Amino acid sequence: MTDGTSGDLARLSLNQETLKQWSLPELAAGCAAAGITRVGLWRAPVQEYGIEQAARLMRDSGLTVTSLCRGGFFTAAEPKARAAALDDNRAAVDEAAALGTGTLVLVSGGLPDGDRDIAAARQRVADAIAELAPYAAERGVRLAIEPLHPMYASDRCVVSTLGQALDIAERFPAEQVGVVVDTYHLWWDDRAPAGIARAGEGGRIACFQVADWVTPLPEGVLLGRGQLGDGCVDLRGFRAMVEEAGYSGDIEVEIFNPALWARDGQEVLEEIVDRYRRHVL
Amino acid sequence: MTDGTSGDLARLSLNQETLKQWSLPELAAGCAAAGITRVGLWRAPVQEYGIEQAARLMRDSGLTVTSLCRGGFFTAAEPKARAAALDDNRAAVDEAAALGTGTLVLVSGGLPDGDRDIAAARQRVADAIAELAPYAAERGVRLAIEPLHPMYASDRCVVSTLGQALDIAERFPAEQVGVVVDTYHLWWDDRAPAGIARAGEGGRIACFQVADWVTPLPEGVLLGRGQLGDGCVDLRGFRAMVEEAGYSGDIEVEIFNPALWARDGQEVLEEIVDRYRRHVL
Repeated sequence: MTDGTSGDLARLSLNQETLKQWSLPELAAGCAAAGITRVGLWRAPVQEYGIEQAARLMRDSGLTVTSLCRGGFFTAAEPKARAAALDDNRAAVDEAAALGTGTLVLVSGGLPDGDRDIAAARQRVADAIAELAPYAAERGVRLAIEPLHPMYASDRCVVSTLGQALDIAERFPAEQVGVVVDTYHLWWDDRAPAGIARAGEGGRIACFQVADWVTPLPEGVLLGRGQLGDGCVDLRGFRAMVEEAGYSGDIEVEIFNPALWARDGQEVLEEIVDRYRRHVL
Repeated sequence: MTDGTSGDLARLSLNQETLKQWSLPELAAGCAAAGITRVGLWRAPVQEYGIEQAARLMRDSGLTVTSLCRGGFFTAAEPKARAAALDDNRAAVDEAAALGTGTLVLVSGGLPDGDRDIAAARQRVADAIAELAPYAAERGVRLAIEPLHPMYASDRCVVSTLGQALDIAERFPAEQVGVVVDTYHLWWDDRAPAGIARAGEGGRIACFQVADWVTPLPEGVLLGRGQLGDGCVDLRGFRAMVEEAGYSGDIEVEIFNPALWARDGQEVLEEIVDRYRRHVL
């Protein structure tokens, strides 16, 4: 294909964290060899490599950066911590702009120590986004609120459902604030289909991520995402829902799983492409 | 007090699993000594002790059985497994009746191996309850659908929110099918307050259970419930919500936590009473 994409992989974006064992140059080379033209990046490894260097590497490798993970952690109540969080988020916006991606994924943050008022924490998220959204919009970056599974509500993200994410996003212009639809976080929710339709209608789907749900969950529940097809999520059904809602953008594979990280990256990438074809397309 | 209850502990029910280190006679003696007159029981330890013997022990100790855990696991699609589940649930109803409790808690079941259709599994739950409810009603037992935290949706309970539980319960007369409001499962849900009001209005709150939410979650996420006051749940706020909704029944303390089980039962019971007074009342 003339645009460098490769047939049925044209919409596949590989989130960097899925192949944590790879350096940025390895990621770029691996994707190019596999016919994958899109990647999602994370701030820490990009900072370590150098923002400008990473941007150049991606460009030179013909890779489009579909999203940067992540801003957020907006829930501090203490003014100094709150100001620091906003500063850090402005830096994240700058990094996204430098990488050429229009999407900064936001993980909103959990409850501060000793805090039992989750409604107030959610309000602080909305307030922080109100401060950040214009700054991001001026730089061509859209904020993408990611609802995380309710098991992360206390320590990572008080925004637990697509409905909550939309309640916040819809206070802002659609081109400034959208939402992330991630199958791992939403698969259980009987209201997710209605939320996806609502998000699509408003042009709010900024990012679509896929991972499977497998049990038992590991201690800390952070690194237990399943390879596509290994779990109980109807991935193809989710793809159909976001498409029905009008989304035709990237499909980002984001799997945090030490068992995948322990294997040869090339082999894992081939497996992902195979699973993507069998379970998502 | 003439009814044997002890002042501010009158509504406190101790769920047996909270003090798993105690035998049934130890539980009965410990509760009597602490002025606790209500207990929630589990099928396995009661069966082991003998149903009739357990019923007699509770009566002789002046203890009221507030609930029996648990029926459910209704999600098998295969006819033979499905019939076996219904048989087992009828046995659970009989056991509840023999113990003199009017409340059988239902944990609905997860997804069968290889199944990716959670909507169909939820429908099978509703279908099974339709078969079971009349049998239970004839024996004076009310089925109490317990929504479990979404992190259990695949392996334990496809009913994940109070709204879903009510959607099923409301197909039946309120005296036949109610719901369980458990703070551990519902604390994160911004729609729980509306669900509690709806449940109260319909007379559907069959059981109110309290435990706190603490992290990190342990592997398997089953045994990580927090002692009252150790976590981020606004327990008193939940009590106020169920009371505002018209509920004035038992407040059952149900905490699965190996750290509590490893300690002296008497000491744990005293701590629970203290925490109950400080964080729930």
